[in-house]
Amino acid sequence: MKLIKVKVVLLTLLVLIIPIELQAREHPVLILTKAGVEEIRKTLGQVPLFDSSVEKTKQEVDIEIAMGIDTPIPTDYSGGYTHERHKKNFVIAQQAGALYQILEDEKYAEYVRDMLFQYEAMYKDLPVHPKPRSYARGKLFWQCLNDSNWLLYMAQAYDSIYSFLSEEERQKLNQNLFRPFADFISIGNPQFYNRIHNHSTWGNAAVGMIGLVMDDQELIDRALYGIVDDGLALGLKDNDGGFIKVAGQKTGFLANLEQPFSPDGYYTEGPYYQRYAMYPFLVFALAMNNVKPELKVFQHKDGVLLKAVDALLNLSDAEGNFFPLNDAQKGMSYYSASLVTAVDMAYFYGGQNPQLLSVAEKQNEVLLDQTGLSVAIGIRDGKSEPFIKQSVNLTDGSDGTEGGVAVLRYGDEDLSLVFKYAAQGLSHGHYDKLSFSLYDRADEIIQDYGLVRFVNIGQKGGGNYLKENHSWAKQTIAHNSLTQDQTSHFKGKYEIGSQHHSELHFFDDSRADIQVVSAREANAYPGTEMHRTMAIIKPENFATPLVLDIMKVASDAKHQYDLPFYFMGQVLQANFDYEIPSSLTPLGDSDGYQHLYLEGKGKPASDSTQFNWLVEGKFYTLTAVTNVTDELLFARVGAQDPEFNLRRDAALIFRRKDAGDSLFVSVIEPHGRYSPVSELSVNPKSNIAALKVAFDTEAYTAVVIETLNNKSSLFIVANRDAATYTKHHLKIAGKHHNWQGPYHLEMIR
Amino acid sequence: MKLIKVKVVLLTLLVLIIPIELQAREHPVLILTKAGVEEIRKTLGQVPLFDSSVEKTKQEVDIEIAMGIDTPIPTDYSGGYTHERHKKNFVIAQQAGALYQILEDEKYAEYVRDMLFQYEAMYKDLPVHPKPRSYARGKLFWQCLNDSNWLLYMAQAYDSIYSFLSEEERQKLNQNLFRPFADFISIGNPQFYNRIHNHSTWGNAAVGMIGLVMDDQELIDRALYGIVDDGLALGLKDNDGGFIKVAGQKTGFLANLEQPFSPDGYYTEGPYYQRYAMYPFLVFALAMNNVKPELKVFQHKDGVLLKAVDALLNLSDAEGNFFPLNDAQKGMSYYSASLVTAVDMAYFYGGQNPQLLSVAEKQNEVLLDQTGLSVAIGIRDGKSEPFIKQSVNLTDGSDGTEGGVAVLRYGDEDLSLVFKYAAQGLSHGHYDKLSFSLYDRADEIIQDYGLVRFVNIGQKGGGNYLKENHSWAKQTIAHNSLTQDQTSHFKGKYEIGSQHHSELHFFDDSRADIQVVSAREANAYPGTEMHRTMAIIKPENFATPLVLDIMKVASDAKHQYDLPFYFMGQVLQANFDYEIPSSLTPLGDSDGYQHLYLEGKGKPASDSTQFNWLVEGKFYTLTAVTNVTDELLFARVGAQDPEFNLRRDAALIFRRKDAGDSLFVSVIEPHGRYSPVSELSVNPKSNIAALKVAFDTEAYTAVVIETLNNKSSLFIVANRDAATYTKHHLKIAGKHHNWQGPYHLEMIR
Repeated sequence: MKLIKVKVVLLTLLVLIIPIELQAREHPVLILTKAGVEEIRKTLGQVPLFDSSVEKTKQEVDIEIAMGIDTPIPTDYSGGYTHERHKKNFVIAQQAGALYQILEDEKYAEYVRDMLFQYEAMYKDLPVHPKPRSYARGKLFWQCLNDSNWLLYMAQAYDSIYSFLSEEERQKLNQNLFRPFADFISIGNPQFYNRIHNHSTWGNAAVGMIGLVMDDQELIDRALYGIVDDGLALGLKDNDGGFIKVAGQKTGFLANLEQPFSPDGYYTEGPYYQRYAMYPFLVFALAMNNVKPELKVFQHKDGVLLKAVDALLNLSDAEGNFFPLNDAQKGMSYYSASLVTAVDMAYFYGGQNPQLLSVAEKQNEVLLDQTGLSVAIGIRDGKSEPFIKQSVNLTDGSDGTEGGVAVLRYGDEDLSLVFKYAAQGLSHGHYDKLSFSLYDRADEIIQDYGLVRFVNIGQKGGGNYLKENHSWAKQTIAHNSLTQDQTSHFKGKYEIGSQHHSELHFFDDSRADIQVVSAREANAYPGTEMHRTMAIIKPENFATPLVLDIMKVASDAKHQYDLPFYFMGQVLQANFDYEIPSSLTPLGDSDGYQHLYLEGKGKPASDSTQFNWLVEGKFYTLTAVTNVTDELLFARVGAQDPEFNLRRDAALIFRRKDAGDSLFVSVIEPHGRYSPVSELSVNPKSNIAALKVAFDTEAYTAVVIETLNNKSSLFIVANRDAATYTKHHLKIAGKHHNWQGPYHLEMIR
Repeated sequence: MKLIKVKVVLLTLLVLIIPIELQAREHPVLILTKAGVEEIRKTLGQVPLFDSSVEKTKQEVDIEIAMGIDTPIPTDYSGGYTHERHKKNFVIAQQAGALYQILEDEKYAEYVRDMLFQYEAMYKDLPVHPKPRSYARGKLFWQCLNDSNWLLYMAQAYDSIYSFLSEEERQKLNQNLFRPFADFISIGNPQFYNRIHNHSTWGNAAVGMIGLVMDDQELIDRALYGIVDDGLALGLKDNDGGFIKVAGQKTGFLANLEQPFSPDGYYTEGPYYQRYAMYPFLVFALAMNNVKPELKVFQHKDGVLLKAVDALLNLSDAEGNFFPLNDAQKGMSYYSASLVTAVDMAYFYGGQNPQLLSVAEKQNEVLLDQTGLSVAIGIRDGKSEPFIKQSVNLTDGSDGTEGGVAVLRYGDEDLSLVFKYAAQGLSHGHYDKLSFSLYDRADEIIQDYGLVRFVNIGQKGGGNYLKENHSWAKQTIAHNSLTQDQTSHFKGKYEIGSQHHSELHFFDDSRADIQVVSAREANAYPGTEMHRTMAIIKPENFATPLVLDIMKVASDAKHQYDLPFYFMGQVLQANFDYEIPSSLTPLGDSDGYQHLYLEGKGKPASDSTQFNWLVEGKFYTLTAVTNVTDELLFARVGAQDPEFNLRRDAALIFRRKDAGDSLFVSVIEPHGRYSPVSELSVNPKSNIAALKVAFDTEAYTAVVIETLNNKSSLFIVANRDAATYTKHHLKIAGKHHNWQGPYHLEMIR
């Protein structure tokens, strides 16, 4: 009896398991699913944005089909023909596969099949790519990274036509193309595959995706958990100077998901690379969700992948351009294809947030799968709501303890202050502790320079990073942060920078009239602590809000401090005298200074130095507390730039020599508008009469902003005690001030 | 019997005349008319764009009424409070007057009345303005020009409430304010009033407008015909270096209408000043048309005023920004209020061209009079058609014989080549004979620098012209034209430049595959003749059109020639080697060279020098025929600029030393796109393998463009014979070429 019972149970299990297995193996299984495709086919012609996305894709693919398939022998770096052709092939193949599923027109399946067999014929004998620049050369492309892109997309194309192919065809593709391809980018290149890096994420996901299509558990495990014994030496570095092998570090997709994302969804390399990494993360997570839902990849780390989409959208300006933190090409935005994926998936799997629909409307395109369909239906049904960005404070580090990035916002993104107090950000990190940038809607007012690279523009160093990225863009002086003794933070050394991060003092965005973030950096310069407090303040007597910046430096020795403001636009007026040199020479010979020309040099004429400028029809004034011995330098990027790789952008640098403890206080004041059409100036001049330090000790710093109409605002920050419950009392110039929490704002006249 | 008959006739005449007189004197009479206002009132609420224009105006005026009237004692230059306040007053008063007529709400009439009496009380004892910079100081403003603006607008405001005022009130305003005001800007300042200049146009129109309101024939005559005996000395000049008194020249409004406009409607100062001058021209012409139609001001010079509107609209880029010919602030566009006036009037009086309606739709505003109503009705009734800009060739000079300006356009303004071979352009003219600029839609590809001034931005020299306007912007080297021996055309002397103009060789926009303009300049450098032929060519083997530039120089002596290309955007690649200096020094010490830094210096490495750059996501390559002894200079604007008045823009300069006769040939080739969102490069590199001079004599110049796919286009220009009927024959390298007309284009391989 017992035996029979067991058998019945076993049989029942088998009955249960077999249909699941069969259903799970009925392709497509990755992004598109059988059920999803059926729903899509049913609603075709009834959902405008989905239909237009299908139509747009169809037009693109049909043109390519008409042109014929080309799989040239690889020879070029990015920007060159063979690179761009192979790149286009995998994108078009993936789209053609989706069209085959949706439209059931076999010409699309045939196109994918023929292309795959051209690759199959070619790949068997293909040597590594002839271009030598990468630490991990691919075969179709100069770097394994691009080969991984290829595989991730082609796995989807393959999945879409899997049932269209004969078993014999599948075997041939698996044996001659996909398995060797997956092996080459993984066990063939562990230095690429087996690390914590966006490169590896692409590799892991690509291997995992093809493993899911082929139902190859070895590849799926290799994707999820990495290579156990990779034979790599500790301390190995890549082209960008990033570490490859770190002691005790787990690898594989789950580790890559664990490590670079903070619990808030901030990706340590910054939004530009997060955008790039999001695609493999999301696509493989979705495929895992479809094929192996029991592994709960989407729910991993408290749903960090969906939080990451929200974080990413919040790290963009009013037109959706990502803030260029660390290496980042300006202009990358939520219009990127990977953000279409991100937004559609986040909508479908993240609780149908109607605000995401308005982003999708702007993108004007959806994914050709069930997530895209749900977005298009939501839009059709009028569920869209404006995507409202609030101030955010995002922790960095896998457990959220390695500093972070804060964005203070005022109004409808009329001001966005981006403040970085994060960790190094892996190999794409910049040496810019406590730096900031300032936006007025989508206009940069105080800019972060970004990277020095023309991505995929072949004639600029093969489209790769240019040497000025290291010699200029990563250096501290290229940022709106403090440089000590003309030396970058951590001496510009990645090994040192990677060990440290800044520390949040406090962040508060709970009030309408003031938002504050405050953080400290104690390791960038041993013996020196920098403590920067930045606030957006809207005193009642100002029409527009102000940005207050307090950089408090404590040091055990005397140093030279340089604090630059990379203002955009046109110089209008300064309240100090300066000399312009008869010829331009660089400001220094290393740490980025060799790329800065000195265009003017002056001394403060007042305790409140003022500088007034115009950006895109808007007037701004910087008012700074200065000493008579301060130097005021006008600098221009572009020295020692033999290939014209740098933009000729400007900075005003506050230089203080022979200083130990020191305090830099300034206010950036947006105050007016100019139209070249009406030629009217409205409020072209500052409303600030003086900026004063009223009090400054280790415990408190107090600043007074005096306006022309004789009103004053007092701001006090508690430098040591960030507790919200602490009650403070401070007597300044005979007057008593009482408040609770780490800061205080008061009209004092 | 006879006597009785005569009496009857007289009586009949009286009967006829009196009502006409009465009706004509029934205010408003200027822009709004009694009949027009009645029609407007009838259609209120039925014409969306008119209603929204009324509503917008009402909102603005209501805010001002709520704030109260301020007529401060004048103290400031433009950009300062008193200047901007008085400026706003006259604009708001004019609008309030119109609102009174349309809405019949007396609060608007009272507001205008009260403001006028505040001025009346003030003006009687007002001295000339305290700021000394103008050659003709006003009373309310620092220059009579702005006082004239005031009077022109206030005349309309006064007209609107004329019937609302008592006879006593009118007498008081006429005697204490308007008549003295009109006298001050005319007989009080003949050096301002009695010349051919946009300043005088404003003055004349202002005096005429108030004359029409007051029915003061003396003022009307003074407006139309100027001051007969002005007592001015010949050769007198104004602040800008412009002539005030020229022998034998007529003055007054009709002369100002006669002189600066060519028969094609081109205004010799250029579109920026034309836009400014259009308003008084049109408004006074309309008022004259309403009050004294028998003078046919609108029909003057074959309807030149309406042609001028068309010319002006055609001198703008794809987004309506005027090409910055001569002194011109970039960003001024057909969105300017004066162009709302121009477009509405041109529509109403110029035959209801439906294309003007699409411009009005973009402006999204109409005049609050019968012309604006007709435009709004046309739009409401769906009559609007796209405004299509074609290539145009506009003559300069009052009789059309003083050179001109040509715009070659390709596609939907994908390329617009602006070629200037005009007269000096009065005091706002630049020394830039045969210069050009190139646009891709609204993006400047090869720029014209424009002016050095921040109009109405007080902190920049009171908002007036800055000294670098003369030392830089007007100089030849600041333009895409040829400079000989580092000296500007006409030695930069206005007296000389004003005597000359370039000569058109030919213009032909009749073909789809090629459009050509060719002109000569023989006086800029005595002993040297420059002959520039520019074409937009679309050879069959190119996806996009090319710009061909042939600058042929004939000289009786050896000189140094500099030919700059002020490219916008980012340098990508050059096919020549160059050195960058370790410090930047100016290229010269006068004629604009003192403002250019030398950033790089090289020598051609090929007969076809190539330079590749990126502007706003679009790739361009300049290919130039070069000699081994040519110098290639990278230059940067901004040297000797102590107030940071200049933009740090770049140029590539072709320098040829010790040359007499010489030929510069180049091709500008748009050939691809880049997106920072997709990061895809499409056609980033040139398709041109070589550019060659195949033949060059006094009679013919032939150029061959060879492409990478081994095709060649031959272009031949007949340098001396511009006749379209001439048949030419030329043998080049053994091959015969036959054609008719001044140029020839042929695929030769």
